[in-house]
Amino acid sequence: MKKLKRSARLVEMTQYLLIHPHLLIPLTTFAERYNAAKSSVSEDLAIIKEVFESEGLGKLHTLAGAAGGVKYIPKIPKDLSLEMMKKICKLLEEPGRILPGGYLYMSDILGQPVYINEIGKMFASIFSNLEIDVIMTVETKGIPLAYAVASYLNLPVVIVRRDNKVTEGSAVSINYVSGSNKKIRMMTLSRRALKEQSKVLIIDDFMKAGGTIQGMKDLLEEFNAKVVGVGVFVESREEGFDDHLITDYVSLAKITSVELKSKKISVYPGNYFDNE
Amino acid sequence: MKKLKRSARLVEMTQYLLIHPHLLIPLTTFAERYNAAKSSVSEDLAIIKEVFESEGLGKLHTLAGAAGGVKYIPKIPKDLSLEMMKKICKLLEEPGRILPGGYLYMSDILGQPVYINEIGKMFASIFSNLEIDVIMTVETKGIPLAYAVASYLNLPVVIVRRDNKVTEGSAVSINYVSGSNKKIRMMTLSRRALKEQSKVLIIDDFMKAGGTIQGMKDLLEEFNAKVVGVGVFVESREEGFDDHLITDYVSLAKITSVELKSKKISVYPGNYFDNE
Repeated sequence: MKKLKRSARLVEMTQYLLIHPHLLIPLTTFAERYNAAKSSVSEDLAIIKEVFESEGLGKLHTLAGAAGGVKYIPKIPKDLSLEMMKKICKLLEEPGRILPGGYLYMSDILGQPVYINEIGKMFASIFSNLEIDVIMTVETKGIPLAYAVASYLNLPVVIVRRDNKVTEGSAVSINYVSGSNKKIRMMTLSRRALKEQSKVLIIDDFMKAGGTIQGMKDLLEEFNAKVVGVGVFVESREEGFDDHLITDYVSLAKITSVELKSKKISVYPGNYFDNE
Repeated sequence: MKKLKRSARLVEMTQYLLIHPHLLIPLTTFAERYNAAKSSVSEDLAIIKEVFESEGLGKLHTLAGAAGGVKYIPKIPKDLSLEMMKKICKLLEEPGRILPGGYLYMSDILGQPVYINEIGKMFASIFSNLEIDVIMTVETKGIPLAYAVASYLNLPVVIVRRDNKVTEGSAVSINYVSGSNKKIRMMTLSRRALKEQSKVLIIDDFMKAGGTIQGMKDLLEEFNAKVVGVGVFVESREEGFDDHLITDYVSLAKITSVELKSKKISVYPGNYFDNE
């Protein structure tokens, strides 16, 4: 590669780091790529690091030594996340979202890649210190979120299905009780999808009683896999009630009441922001 | 905001452009953001433009005048896409993917955000000149692809469901004939999900006879929406057979044969690369 000027090198390295999060990149990779001295590369990285940190984009971890290099860890500061979530809570409180049965229509928000990417980056920040092998979700609406988180953590995704598809090969199925309406439902995961002993982060868009997430946990036991974290975008928790089957989870928003008559919906930032 | 040096400004603008594709950003936005002269911003953009183009990241379109600004259009050169797709074709030819019935297991590839993002960027490049309001897909495996494309095109996604969920509100359902096994199936789309007259790009992971995509087209007619493009990641087309219900589509890979006995799978780059 032809020798690049510092200015061009900075643009190049910035884009390279952004699309390779959570990957240790040896300084020699950059030095060779740009035909530049390692010392110049280090100076460039110092500039990028400062901008990334002041912009709330994340950290650049530099490891010294022969096996050293640089790693970009996407990390949104909590106050920025809170600001963003307050806006989303306002959107969720729009009276027109109320559906028959007191359900809330959220598919428009979950259909916007801009929100999905922001929420994904929040979860990636929250779980950035965990050792994770794979992100798991259940179809359908949690899928884009799971991929956004996985993209920022540089991890693969496995999708639990509600049905047993021929295109998934042999699969493990379990029945579980959907917590909110006590219906018995099925979920199934391809045998090939998950190695034994995997460390799994569960991501879903919505949690009411937590039956679906408990189902995923039960399913993971069949694979001898270990749940290392659970993140839900929105939880629904009526004031005074504390009937969650799942207690160890991170939520970003919390619906506390949906009044059908007055069409008043109350949504607050989730438990991640408690004690702020 | 404090005045940034050129070096810091380049890093800042690079990341800003990358996360805001297909959005016209007035030069004054950058000038005010960095407390810099417009002429300096223009010089910065020229540097970024050159690196983006030489790296195959895409184009920076600059529009002069009062209503002017800069827009980042992700665009992978066709030769780079072909190189990437040849690697993916090799992966798809691994004999271990064959499932009973001659189906191919692809969920591992579709579970890797790195591939999904690359494929998404390819489709976003291919369809970058179309006027599109929304990306549509049908659950389940096409969802991450649709979001990746949408992310690079700065568009929303609507998901067609196989069932009628209470959380989607009133919906339009149609029955369609799945082309490969002639089964009658249902698909449904929330009334709220799509405005009348929308211009829709359909994205899916797999197409055999094309019954599912024909179903989506029929469903879109109920919304008076217009299909402006169809992109499928992998099409299956046996040599000598030409039984696709759909003719106007772009594919990135093509499975031409799956021999159960010898476990030989043949996969080639799709019709996007024809005549290369």
